[in-house]
Amino acid sequence: MYDTGTTNRKKLIIVGGGAVGLAVATSVKRHGNYEITVFSSDPHAAYSQCGIPFVISGEIEGFDKLLLKQKDFFPEMGIDLRLDTTVESLDLKDRTVFVKGEKHHFDKLVIATGSRPAVSDNLRQGAELDNVFTLRSLEDGKRIDRSLENAKNVVIIGGGGIGVEIAVAAAKRGLRTILVNRSISLLSHNIDQDMADIVQEHLESIGVDVLTGQSPHSINGKARVESVSIGGVDFPADVVIISAGALPETKLASDAGIEIGTTGGIIVNEHLQVRTKSGYDPDVYCGGECAQVQNFITGMPMLSQLASTARRMAGVIRNNLISRPTSFGPIVNPWAGAIGELQVGTVGITTRKAKQHRIKTVSGIAIGTTRAGYYPGSTRLFIKLLFSNRILVGAQVIGGEGVKERIDGLSLAIRKRTTLDELLSMETCYTPPMSMLIDPLTFAAQGALKKLPGSKK
Amino acid sequence: MYDTGTTNRKKLIIVGGGAVGLAVATSVKRHGNYEITVFSSDPHAAYSQCGIPFVISGEIEGFDKLLLKQKDFFPEMGIDLRLDTTVESLDLKDRTVFVKGEKHHFDKLVIATGSRPAVSDNLRQGAELDNVFTLRSLEDGKRIDRSLENAKNVVIIGGGGIGVEIAVAAAKRGLRTILVNRSISLLSHNIDQDMADIVQEHLESIGVDVLTGQSPHSINGKARVESVSIGGVDFPADVVIISAGALPETKLASDAGIEIGTTGGIIVNEHLQVRTKSGYDPDVYCGGECAQVQNFITGMPMLSQLASTARRMAGVIRNNLISRPTSFGPIVNPWAGAIGELQVGTVGITTRKAKQHRIKTVSGIAIGTTRAGYYPGSTRLFIKLLFSNRILVGAQVIGGEGVKERIDGLSLAIRKRTTLDELLSMETCYTPPMSMLIDPLTFAAQGALKKLPGSKK
Ligand SMILES: Cc1cc2nc3c(=O)[nH]c(=O)nc-3n(C[C@H](O)[C@H](O)[C@H](O)COP(=O)(O)OP(=O)(O)OC[C@H]3O[C@@H](n4cnc5c(N)ncnc54)[C@H](O)[C@@H]3O)c2cc1C
Ligand SMILES: Cc1cc2nc3c(=O)[nH]c(=O)nc-3n(C[C@H](O)[C@H](O)[C@H](O)COP(=O)(O)OP(=O)(O)OC[C@H]3O[C@@H](n4cnc5c(N)ncnc54)[C@H](O)[C@@H]3O)c2cc1C
Repeated sequence: MYDTGTTNRKKLIIVGGGAVGLAVATSVKRHGNYEITVFSSDPHAAYSQCGIPFVISGEIEGFDKLLLKQKDFFPEMGIDLRLDTTVESLDLKDRTVFVKGEKHHFDKLVIATGSRPAVSDNLRQGAELDNVFTLRSLEDGKRIDRSLENAKNVVIIGGGGIGVEIAVAAAKRGLRTILVNRSISLLSHNIDQDMADIVQEHLESIGVDVLTGQSPHSINGKARVESVSIGGVDFPADVVIISAGALPETKLASDAGIEIGTTGGIIVNEHLQVRTKSGYDPDVYCGGECAQVQNFITGMPMLSQLASTARRMAGVIRNNLISRPTSFGPIVNPWAGAIGELQVGTVGITTRKAKQHRIKTVSGIAIGTTRAGYYPGSTRLFIKLLFSNRILVGAQVIGGEGVKERIDGLSLAIRKRTTLDELLSMETCYTPPMSMLIDPLTFAAQGALKKLPGSKK
Repeated sequence: MYDTGTTNRKKLIIVGGGAVGLAVATSVKRHGNYEITVFSSDPHAAYSQCGIPFVISGEIEGFDKLLLKQKDFFPEMGIDLRLDTTVESLDLKDRTVFVKGEKHHFDKLVIATGSRPAVSDNLRQGAELDNVFTLRSLEDGKRIDRSLENAKNVVIIGGGGIGVEIAVAAAKRGLRTILVNRSISLLSHNIDQDMADIVQEHLESIGVDVLTGQSPHSINGKARVESVSIGGVDFPADVVIISAGALPETKLASDAGIEIGTTGGIIVNEHLQVRTKSGYDPDVYCGGECAQVQNFITGMPMLSQLASTARRMAGVIRNNLISRPTSFGPIVNPWAGAIGELQVGTVGITTRKAKQHRIKTVSGIAIGTTRAGYYPGSTRLFIKLLFSNRILVGAQVIGGEGVKERIDGLSLAIRKRTTLDELLSMETCYTPPMSMLIDPLTFAAQGALKKLPGSKK
């Protein structure tokens, strides 16, 4: 037991027991002197949300594997974790939260309510049918998993990271799988169309029917879903998964007078403190998907819907709560996903995003291999680099291995404002089982160089 | 045919048909206007030296797979490639090279003679015995491969990159394999002892007997090798491979009055031009293992015995030959090797080298996994980071996957003089099939931070 009943300890309340909430709770408990209560709507705690698609695909043996902590962990640590318990409202004046009609006082508050799946108006009615799901929590995952057992036809709505991962899972289970995506290219928030084409081709090769540039008109059925109407055609469906983005869960905050930004996320300062009409509140922190962060390249507000960002924000909130003032700066938001045999990663901005922000970019693409061509297990590797004023501002990588490590390196490179010339003269290592003699990164940089005005190459 | 008989073309002679020589030849041919002759002592051209250990291990099907170009490639390109032909001397005044008694005039000369295996005095006699080999060329590889067919006991002398790779190959072939290493830790030029211990443990687990801190006294036998004496014990040996480092092949150059540096390599300026008593010679270039380069961290001269460095130097020589002045700067020399199931990589300086140069460093080590702990295929991952004045100066990584990509990222990070604080707040990406939620890199940086004076953590 960490908790030895010290008096006068300050009361920390955390709303949300997800990636941010529990990381703040456990690490503040270790390093600080707080009485901590966490409220979470979810009946489960400390599981890996991000692993759910891989249980559904059969890659991971069962949902139990995703449980990262024993049941007793939190009480034994001295953290009062209230699961299946929704905070109904906040009162910033009173320094209280309301839960099941009871008032709970706080000295410090952390809002970490995450997001909820977005469902467009025309699908709202169909979304109520049996076997129509969204995917956010462990329970969602279990329900989807069970429903797929007796399914033949699955329609997945939304081709973002989660939609694509679930499409692979359904196809791996031998189901007839349709993935419908509003944008004309998959993963449109993450990668450009040229790179998305590679992903789409791979999905099709493993049996996913991909419909891009289309939105479902309706989800149809009596009690249970029967079909989805897309472009005038009724596609039969035993199971439908709506994975069309997520919206920051901010009602609690906004009802309490906390300001919401243009992205729909809660406005925070660099210390991740929230703002009300009276300014930033030094005792109320917010992090994770419900918070609005800043883009390192564009300087504009954005949402980061990533466990990795959530975890970093939790670290900053923790530090600030234990009097080690720490800032959370603008982000380059590296993302990676495993999509069948492909690893896909991205960091910084895409060409699409650059255009939206009127940032002029030059890109270079290289196709290589992950090992020497003659070495067994070598897979194709695609690298796209984006430069603005000869400075690296974005990177997209697709390959069979080593993608996350490349994206991490490029993440640092973007933050360090690495120039095209520095990338051209960069040293990479070589050994046939692990690389090409000249890394494709160099070729991608050379590709960008060739497009620059006045280039000799 | 690229070559269309233009007159007045300048004559480029390249001595050495290895990684540097042939890369310069082919790319100058594509972009420049030279008549090109390459002389090479080797009877083969354009093969992957670095792949040889993996043919011997059985990973790659046969030596033919290592041949990167068809026989006709060079003549069809219009490059006069003379294999099995050693340049006997140079005359810089005359602008000629002597080959088989004939003089050949050059306007531009490239010296790319590589290295030769080092054999210590006490082993020189034994090295003449049958079934005692060094490994540098394709022919060496083929001879070793054949000799292992009927062998039972193999002794490998030298635990550097090549020695270790060959030890794995012999063990994989079921041979009783002894690896003897003068330094008390393997790969002592590449990694520190704590990391080398992991490599040694792995080698032992696959059946290699590792003797460290010992040098063989003699290699014994009549016509054929029979044993190796190490520390007073005679170890039976059917095959011995001496892999105890390489010495720059510089005799040709030094005999011609070209200056040799303290490392034994040929002195070059940033344009990779050689120096004589009269200064740098603008028409004579040198690159690859025979050239002396500069260490980015220590500022001191060093050798880089890497195909990747060779290839970059070839690019710089090429550019300078076709009038695009380009510099070759100090290097961080990233290296990676596949050692059984382990991938091992390093960049910058080690603790050992730092001490030699009286550079004060602080290191941090982290042990993690390459994927989420619960994800199938996850392997252990070891990261060691070295900082000097809070700036990253070295990194060593061992794991089952993604090591080369990590080292490349860290290679750039060192060149960009990334600080400890920047690494601590670095953004890494996360998805269970490809990473941990918090990358072990962060933990390694935190480990270093804790050792700094006045650190709170
Ligand atoms: C299927 C799936 C796969 C994913 N894969 C990846 C991946 O590979 N990589 C990656 O980086 N990210 C991935 N993510 C995203 C990642 O899981 C989230 O970004 C991260 O969990 C966000 O953390 P958070 O704390 O902001 O929100 P959450 O972890 O969602 O936690 C929010 C919590 O707040 C609770 N809550 C909300 N309102 C209240 C209230 N009023 N009272 C009490 N409790 C409340 C919710 O029930 C929830 O438990 C994935 C997400 C999903 C759903
Ligand atoms: C078994 C093995 C594995 C390796 N693995 C790796 C690895 O995984 N990664 C890595 O980066 N590096 C590796 N290397 C090192 C890499 O192969 C060398 O660094 C690279 O080939 C150096 O290029 P070079 O042109 O300087 O020398 P070389 O490629 O050796 O070429 C030199 C050439 O010059 C010729 N020559 C010498 N003198 C004369 C003369 N007087 N006249 C005519 N010709 C002459 C030689 O015959 C030779 O063909 C490995 C080397 C070996 C031997």
